[in-house]
Amino acid sequence: MKVSRIGEFGLIAALSRITSAATNEKWQSLRQITVGMGDDAAVWKTENPFQIATVDSMVEGIHFTLKTITWRELGWKSLAVNLSDIAAMGGVPLYAFVSIGLPADTLVEDVTALYEGMTELASMHEVAVAGGDTVTSPVVFISVTVIGRASNDEGRVLTRSAAQPGDKVAVTGELGASAAGLRMLLEGRKFPARATAELRRAHDAPTPRLAEGRKLVSLGVKAGMDISDGLIGDLTHICDMSRVSARVDVDRVPVSRAVTRCFGERARGFALSGGEDYELLFTAPARIMARAEKTLGCPVSVVGEIIPSGRRKPRVHLVNGHGDVVDLKHKGWDHFST
Amino acid sequence: MKVSRIGEFGLIAALSRITSAATNEKWQSLRQITVGMGDDAAVWKTENPFQIATVDSMVEGIHFTLKTITWRELGWKSLAVNLSDIAAMGGVPLYAFVSIGLPADTLVEDVTALYEGMTELASMHEVAVAGGDTVTSPVVFISVTVIGRASNDEGRVLTRSAAQPGDKVAVTGELGASAAGLRMLLEGRKFPARATAELRRAHDAPTPRLAEGRKLVSLGVKAGMDISDGLIGDLTHICDMSRVSARVDVDRVPVSRAVTRCFGERARGFALSGGEDYELLFTAPARIMARAEKTLGCPVSVVGEIIPSGRRKPRVHLVNGHGDVVDLKHKGWDHFST
Repeated sequence: MKVSRIGEFGLIAALSRITSAATNEKWQSLRQITVGMGDDAAVWKTENPFQIATVDSMVEGIHFTLKTITWRELGWKSLAVNLSDIAAMGGVPLYAFVSIGLPADTLVEDVTALYEGMTELASMHEVAVAGGDTVTSPVVFISVTVIGRASNDEGRVLTRSAAQPGDKVAVTGELGASAAGLRMLLEGRKFPARATAELRRAHDAPTPRLAEGRKLVSLGVKAGMDISDGLIGDLTHICDMSRVSARVDVDRVPVSRAVTRCFGERARGFALSGGEDYELLFTAPARIMARAEKTLGCPVSVVGEIIPSGRRKPRVHLVNGHGDVVDLKHKGWDHFST
Repeated sequence: MKVSRIGEFGLIAALSRITSAATNEKWQSLRQITVGMGDDAAVWKTENPFQIATVDSMVEGIHFTLKTITWRELGWKSLAVNLSDIAAMGGVPLYAFVSIGLPADTLVEDVTALYEGMTELASMHEVAVAGGDTVTSPVVFISVTVIGRASNDEGRVLTRSAAQPGDKVAVTGELGASAAGLRMLLEGRKFPARATAELRRAHDAPTPRLAEGRKLVSLGVKAGMDISDGLIGDLTHICDMSRVSARVDVDRVPVSRAVTRCFGERARGFALSGGEDYELLFTAPARIMARAEKTLGCPVSVVGEIIPSGRRKPRVHLVNGHGDVVDLKHKGWDHFST
């Protein structure tokens, strides 16, 4: 059935049934929501004075195409990219507010699948889908706001502006699978089933590093963000906001093995500038970094260090294992930037 | 210059200059924002444990057309409808997060005008525009999230589910000007300058009833909402959620004088079911209502009362001054519903 047939209120009722399913109701109660869906706004009682909020929109034809992502995955991903922003602050996500634009001929079962994907991820992180609205739109768009709290009573978080010369630069996990997955989907490339599933999942249903973000804050890490524009692009954001430069050894960047198997030489380009990995990029003094490597509970790769930028514009210098300067453009890697 | 030429980061820089202008920075500081724009998320310290959040999206061609609204008005209105939701809870708005979708050929000066309109209204209510994102989209859309707090330490708010049989039903201000304004703009009707300005402002730059919402809570009013779907439609929402019915005397509904002057007989239809008035609709026992009429600081019109719905489906009954049943359809008023 098309959403135009059941109307706005019918659709809201159908979606409320999904978000009111046992899990979400449990989190609504745990989250002390005193006024929930159906009223003009949601009301809740906070446990921590330091609140965190982030908003991100995804638009059909710009950020995704329904040719390569299912509605369920789209629901997952639209929440995941926001949870990743909370992870990037080392915070705890609590509430999600969802605003969806839908063409009138959208199928109700597609919208419910989207909500199911979103609710599945929300439940895993005890996030209550607390409100939102559904509007008619010529293109599908999803705008998600996530509100959370700091993971400590002092309001300590990871920021982009706290990197210091001498800090080591590190990333969690492996990079490149999301961008390679997008390339695979758009080009219709065929790979072995396991690699195909891994690349697709990396792009269409990424996993936000929430536990790792909180752990980094507890270890005393101060500077960090999530990788959405690509390692080099995002490290440039940290350098700009911290007024420092960085040196990255491209041979130490952890390239996803599935990407190397499927794309060979091109793999490193995806890892350096592919984007949408939603891994964490952070900087810290050597002593703290050593503890992070041992205790974070996921792979941590030190890929470089923060250096003073002096009077020059902050920038990211690329070198290889021998310390020779590497030209990203010359290598042809920049073609993969998103 | 088109936004595609200055790019995402150039646009963010231009918009940050507007939101960082003296007023907004003052509110950011007053609002104890510890991490602001430019990072993965915003962080602030709350003063009150009871938080309120609401989100609303407006889409070009569905909720507005740039043929009849300026970019500056669009910025004002997209925030106003969210502030009105906070007013509808009797809360205090604190932070706004703005997600905007823009075609690549949008002019930068149009986007800055939108932000100026939004910031003007934000400053009037001491709201800090604390974050957001700007994405490419085939159509213009604006999704605004406003976060606020309850106006009291006990978390008392106005809800749609608290109406009780015996309550009087009242509205603030006058109704119908917004829907009449839309009709005037779409049909290109010509009216005297003062009426034209009043109708246009009602539709394109409505004023949220924030002070009045808070006052209602302090007077002990428990049930209320803002009028966005029209008086009858919205009172039906209250009846549904409170499991009661209502009787409305159509002769007591305050019709905007400008609408009566311009549209004659059709005016009452706009007032009953036109929508987007952003006045407050509330119910309370007679004793509290009498105090509201005296002290609210704006016109208050008692238009009816809440009655038991018994075992039947909750509904809104319309009567005239003589107590005779009025048929909205027969009167042709329902043609004006939005």
